[in-house]
Amino acid sequence: MPGDFLPAFFILNPNRYFWKKYKMSSFIDFGIAQKQYNRMNRITQLFGTKYPIIQGGMIWHSGWRLASAVSNNGGLGLIGSASMYPDILRENIRKCKTATDKPFGVNVALLYPNLEEIINIILEEGVKIVFTSAGNPKTYTETLKKEGIKVAHVVSSVKFAIKCQEAGVDAVVAEGFEAGGHNGRDETTTLCLIPNVRKHIDIPLIAAGGIGLGSQMRAAMTLGADGVQIGSRFAATVEASSHENFKNKIVELKEGDTQLTLKELAPVRLVKNKFFHDLENLYETGRNIEALKETLGRARAKRGMFEGDLVEGELEIGQVSALIDEILPVEKVFENLIKEFNEAKVDLSL
Amino acid sequence: MPGDFLPAFFILNPNRYFWKKYKMSSFIDFGIAQKQYNRMNRITQLFGTKYPIIQGGMIWHSGWRLASAVSNNGGLGLIGSASMYPDILRENIRKCKTATDKPFGVNVALLYPNLEEIINIILEEGVKIVFTSAGNPKTYTETLKKEGIKVAHVVSSVKFAIKCQEAGVDAVVAEGFEAGGHNGRDETTTLCLIPNVRKHIDIPLIAAGGIGLGSQMRAAMTLGADGVQIGSRFAATVEASSHENFKNKIVELKEGDTQLTLKELAPVRLVKNKFFHDLENLYETGRNIEALKETLGRARAKRGMFEGDLVEGELEIGQVSALIDEILPVEKVFENLIKEFNEAKVDLSL
Repeated sequence: MPGDFLPAFFILNPNRYFWKKYKMSSFIDFGIAQKQYNRMNRITQLFGTKYPIIQGGMIWHSGWRLASAVSNNGGLGLIGSASMYPDILRENIRKCKTATDKPFGVNVALLYPNLEEIINIILEEGVKIVFTSAGNPKTYTETLKKEGIKVAHVVSSVKFAIKCQEAGVDAVVAEGFEAGGHNGRDETTTLCLIPNVRKHIDIPLIAAGGIGLGSQMRAAMTLGADGVQIGSRFAATVEASSHENFKNKIVELKEGDTQLTLKELAPVRLVKNKFFHDLENLYETGRNIEALKETLGRARAKRGMFEGDLVEGELEIGQVSALIDEILPVEKVFENLIKEFNEAKVDLSL
Repeated sequence: MPGDFLPAFFILNPNRYFWKKYKMSSFIDFGIAQKQYNRMNRITQLFGTKYPIIQGGMIWHSGWRLASAVSNNGGLGLIGSASMYPDILRENIRKCKTATDKPFGVNVALLYPNLEEIINIILEEGVKIVFTSAGNPKTYTETLKKEGIKVAHVVSSVKFAIKCQEAGVDAVVAEGFEAGGHNGRDETTTLCLIPNVRKHIDIPLIAAGGIGLGSQMRAAMTLGADGVQIGSRFAATVEASSHENFKNKIVELKEGDTQLTLKELAPVRLVKNKFFHDLENLYETGRNIEALKETLGRARAKRGMFEGDLVEGELEIGQVSALIDEILPVEKVFENLIKEFNEAKVDLSL
């Protein structure tokens, strides 16, 4: 009996999309509906995706090509607006709409100088999902939600996760110390962060930092996350807009090849190349903040990740890069993630 | 039919302890045997324990009282020899033998000054399990294994895990950045370390660092570990030999209250108390290694963890302390771990 397997929720909501699509007239159809139900959770329901997998909106990687490929494969693709001038962002949103009929979103760093312009473009272009980061979740959550936009905010601590819930966001992304790029000051790892955030908030929770394999995805969800945000693994895809040199570098990186720096200033995880060591020296000898800001500026990140200068450029990537051995098409990344996720079950019963 | 559920291994080994204990004469007995089989894996078989849970051999915490309580509750208790003079270690081993008839072991830091004396005591007292750390796994593995002792070695990187396997150890403990006390230079977190070590070695693998809840235990095993080593959670137990002040401090610690310091010298995760800040200042201004060694010496760790001086003493504990809210008896810790482990299953199927 369907009632034995599907919860009352479905009986009461007969108009759900797959209910319409699959008539419950045969055992096979029922099997498909059951499989789809097994795959659904709060994240897939919130964003309308097939899988609870979000692709992090990374600067210089996440243009329309990557975002639409992720969405077409059943995840939630995010356009990373922080490396885009406003007109470039508009172009990326339009191209993404053409390339996919599935849900996608835009990541907005709330410290961005042209912030108001960026938000206006998002509203004008009818973007339905926004991930905010690097700032106060109160700043734009209400404005965006009034327009029917789903809002998630990225944090690295329990304290800010609670603030997000208070600000009324739809979901929280909690990102651990192992993540690439900008990071928290407490250095809390994903393994310690997720169960603690889960303990303190009720709304949907997305784990980030250190997730590139399906086993890591299942581990994060075992800790209480409803879904995952994956960055580095999607940076090393055919569809990422970053430079080929950087993608090849990601594939080569081994354990210990990335490190968090500028800890008291603005913690960021980088590849330990010449630029990193120059930055560390500058940081340690005198901590000249102006000189640091100049070195760290937008140009160096572009030079490294988009123009492919592996020596003088800033290269942001996560620790999980040590487990990434190939540049793959997004479709293959999904195939691997799903296979690994399903295989990583622990059979032990204590 | 039993043959459908229990592997040939049991049919061929009819003298296994629970086979003798539980006659297969009724369905209920069979259920018990099946449950015991579901609980067994390479770690429980290697050490002869009920659960694949090892209590880390922590200085100033892990005397005979803690080790025997852990063993009596189905885990593997380890006496931490690094804070003991040789005669104190001998006394602890003898008391542990009296307090439990279950397997227990001794943790040996291979940099210990009286190392040979310690090893001789272990051999003389007939200890059956030794966990070595902080040194080359080749140094004593052969000597110990010749005497029929099971040997595990603690590492923080794939590189040293491979060396352990080559040295012939029975199991590897891979410990992530979130762990308390001495730590690796690569800062690799447990979430990134375990799948990478699993990829490179075949022998039994024990995950450590950031594990204090049953959900974290299941997450670590989802990543490929066969068992877990738990430190901080057992430090805040009634049976730990550390000072009451320190146990109360562990319970109070919040996110961000511990930090890894002395990164280039000898990384160690400590509570951020006055001692920690004095040490950081000394480290940053000039890096006078002699002064650091003096400050860091044995006396400060004893002062903090054993004598309860929370200001001037060295306090080693893991990030997971932020999730530890009560001092509990070891029995209750096991009850919680097992309940949480069994409940933390992810039902989603992708």
